Amino acid sequence: MEYKGEARKFLEEHGVEVGDRVRIVRDDGVEIEGIIMPRSELGDDRHLVVKMDNGYNVGVRVDRIERLEPVGERREPKFRPLEEEIPEDPSLPNVAVMSTGGTIACRVDYETGAVKPAFTAEELVSAVPELPDVVNIADVRAVMDLLSENMEPGHWIKIAEEVADALSDPDVDGVVVAHGTDTMAFTAAALAFLLDGLPGPVVLVGAQRSSDRPSSDAASNLIAACRFAGEGEVGEVTVCMHGWTADEVCLVHRGVRVRKMHTSRRDAFRSIESLPIARVDVRDLRNPEVEYLREDYREPEDGEPELSGGFEERVALVKFAPGMGPEVLDFYVDRGYRGIVLEGTGLGHVSERWLDSIERAVDEGVAVVMTSQCLYGRVNMNVYRTGRLLRTAGVIPGEDMLPEVAYVKLMYVLNETDDLGEVERLMRTNLVGEIERGRVIGGFEPADGPHHRL
Amino acid sequence: MEYKGEARKFLEEHGVEVGDRVRIVRDDGVEIEGIIMPRSELGDDRHLVVKMDNGYNVGVRVDRIERLEPVGERREPKFRPLEEEIPEDPSLPNVAVMSTGGTIACRVDYETGAVKPAFTAEELVSAVPELPDVVNIADVRAVMDLLSENMEPGHWIKIAEEVADALSDPDVDGVVVAHGTDTMAFTAAALAFLLDGLPGPVVLVGAQRSSDRPSSDAASNLIAACRFAGEGEVGEVTVCMHGWTADEVCLVHRGVRVRKMHTSRRDAFRSIESLPIARVDVRDLRNPEVEYLREDYREPEDGEPELSGGFEERVALVKFAPGMGPEVLDFYVDRGYRGIVLEGTGLGHVSERWLDSIERAVDEGVAVVMTSQCLYGRVNMNVYRTGRLLRTAGVIPGEDMLPEVAYVKLMYVLNETDDLGEVERLMRTNLVGEIERGRVIGGFEPADGPHHRL
Repeated sequence: MEYKGEARKFLEEHGVEVGDRVRIVRDDGVEIEGIIMPRSELGDDRHLVVKMDNGYNVGVRVDRIERLEPVGERREPKFRPLEEEIPEDPSLPNVAVMSTGGTIACRVDYETGAVKPAFTAEELVSAVPELPDVVNIADVRAVMDLLSENMEPGHWIKIAEEVADALSDPDVDGVVVAHGTDTMAFTAAALAFLLDGLPGPVVLVGAQRSSDRPSSDAASNLIAACRFAGEGEVGEVTVCMHGWTADEVCLVHRGVRVRKMHTSRRDAFRSIESLPIARVDVRDLRNPEVEYLREDYREPEDGEPELSGGFEERVALVKFAPGMGPEVLDFYVDRGYRGIVLEGTGLGHVSERWLDSIERAVDEGVAVVMTSQCLYGRVNMNVYRTGRLLRTAGVIPGEDMLPEVAYVKLMYVLNETDDLGEVERLMRTNLVGEIERGRVIGGFEPADGPHHRL
Repeated sequence: MEYKGEARKFLEEHGVEVGDRVRIVRDDGVEIEGIIMPRSELGDDRHLVVKMDNGYNVGVRVDRIERLEPVGERREPKFRPLEEEIPEDPSLPNVAVMSTGGTIACRVDYETGAVKPAFTAEELVSAVPELPDVVNIADVRAVMDLLSENMEPGHWIKIAEEVADALSDPDVDGVVVAHGTDTMAFTAAALAFLLDGLPGPVVLVGAQRSSDRPSSDAASNLIAACRFAGEGEVGEVTVCMHGWTADEVCLVHRGVRVRKMHTSRRDAFRSIESLPIARVDVRDLRNPEVEYLREDYREPEDGEPELSGGFEERVALVKFAPGMGPEVLDFYVDRGYRGIVLEGTGLGHVSERWLDSIERAVDEGVAVVMTSQCLYGRVNMNVYRTGRLLRTAGVIPGEDMLPEVAYVKLMYVLNETDDLGEVERLMRTNLVGEIERGRVIGGFEPADGPHHRL
């Protein structure tokens, strides 16, 4: 947004504009150096927003600014000028790239101050110039522009339709979907259940740090994702994100076994009790290398992919905690919900005083599925009394599924059938890799690992 | 429970009893070897329950048993005979041990078939004969016998009262609380907020494997907990559990920074973005060694400990997922709840369509606190639009608190004050170590850690 009032007057008087790098001395002596950002949508007319080098924004009241001076050259262009034509290399694979929003698709236009979601092949290449050495961008689609916390099941279907459409072109080897990281794992699970007969990889990719920060993972993640999508060897929905720093490696996770496990670190995405499908060495951005870490991935299928169903939206995720009453279950049942995923304790427990409400839910035909808030390990309701009581009440064990994946899967399964026996059978059957049952152990680090300083 | 009907008749005919080790051949040729357990409370009159060597129980229909034969010696006693008097060593520290239930306190009485919660010093020592070499058991209390998923805030207060009472004896150096592992971290947080002026350590301890399994961690965890409690050097509530296997080490975690992260592994408990306070080397159970891993723990205080407040129970924990509507917030507000802890995505987000319900909650004086389902990292609501909108709506950032700890803390804070400004101030103030804000980094393992097989 553009500045108004006092802030705008201040900028004009000092001859600086949005996008300029400045050093500010405040009346209390604090010095702030950074780039003047567009006005925040919640800002008033008296503050400037400055993005500091640590990546964070700070608001500075203009009447408290003692001194302001430009630093360095006037506005370096952040992007290469757009090329008219991107060279196409017939020896390279063809990848479709689509944007749904999020940090990776964010680009502040320093001319107008607007955050632009525009997304063309030319802009991609101007931002990530190594891309044409890795793949041909055969198809570019700006599907939507959403912060991923605002995604809904309807968006998952829209994305799946676009992916299926892109992959119905036999020349396209794989699809890359740029997505906000907050709910990327949910969307990955949704696409995994929805998309049937994939002829190539679907790779969700995001960035934990935006591209205007020096430590941004946007370019390397995108290149790794395109490289893996171009391989065309896997008929699964995956998530490609920064792996770890020392080696500049990205990891390609199975979409139904991955979770965002850190609010801010670049290596936030982890395969939980599972091994990533591959890693991509991105030290040389023009020649990234794929190494497969497991062989039991799904092979690509011939023909065009199809959407295999949809999502019943009357499904809730309920995390249990001591002291919480079961009334929230009654609330959902009263509202006509068809499914509830419980995130219980340990091997899959909730307080015994929840039993009546659970029994009532099951009696009314509501599917109740148990997962564990431990995240690692698997539900086993045969060990302790509470588990057995819950089983007797009709609770379906969620095996080793992540709570978030069980939630998406229950939406998918309830769209297929209302029959609780069939719901239980499908929930406990591995459909697309979401149930591994310890076939591959990985991801649960020993407490004496190198980062524990023990 | 005792067997009845067919099952009882079968046992009598074969001359075997509960507690006997038997080999069974079923009519389909399957062989099952294990110990005959008491009848499950959900069992019928036709099944025997057999605990196999992997620790799991299986039900076997008696009319399908082709052959049954006893294995090995008749019923080895699992426990040393109770001693009349336990020697007291004046050179050893004095520890109070109390039981609240859970796997660690479970002891099947093979005479009667009952699961006995009885808990005396003699029984402790007969089960863990090394104990008198480590501490004097100055005080033993069977406070309650609960599976920990059935704990409620009222139980937290009862336990705190017993702990305070035990520590008001100047001869007691520390307290050990045996507790089920499912909600042990919740109870630890509750005790940490409740107990003021601790003159010594409070150490919660549990077991992931019951003491009738060869890999049980019950004895070593209990010894480590008693050893650390006896040190008397820390005035904090802690959790002592198995650390890792190679070195036979237990870890003493800060009670407000720990989480059960695996459904079944013995090393399930992890300090999250925090360093454990100490480790206890238990290779020699008669002489365990404590090593402190950090120095910024709270020192013991002089005098008697006190309960500093209580818990407002009208608090809910709500985990957000895409597709979930905000009506669950309205439900809690309509029911008169005073606080809601959101478990949002990433840096602390929920869908923008939740904003109206959040604003309404805050308008009605309900404290809404944001935490992250990532678990690692910290909430930062200043980076993205959604975070800023939520802040403007009055959401209180939960800093780097674990969602479960923020939930317990909000119950505690709302018991003190209804004033939302004061609630925000207290929630964002570190009271007992629950907010570390990256002072100590630890616990988030690199993805190329040794257990990842990358």
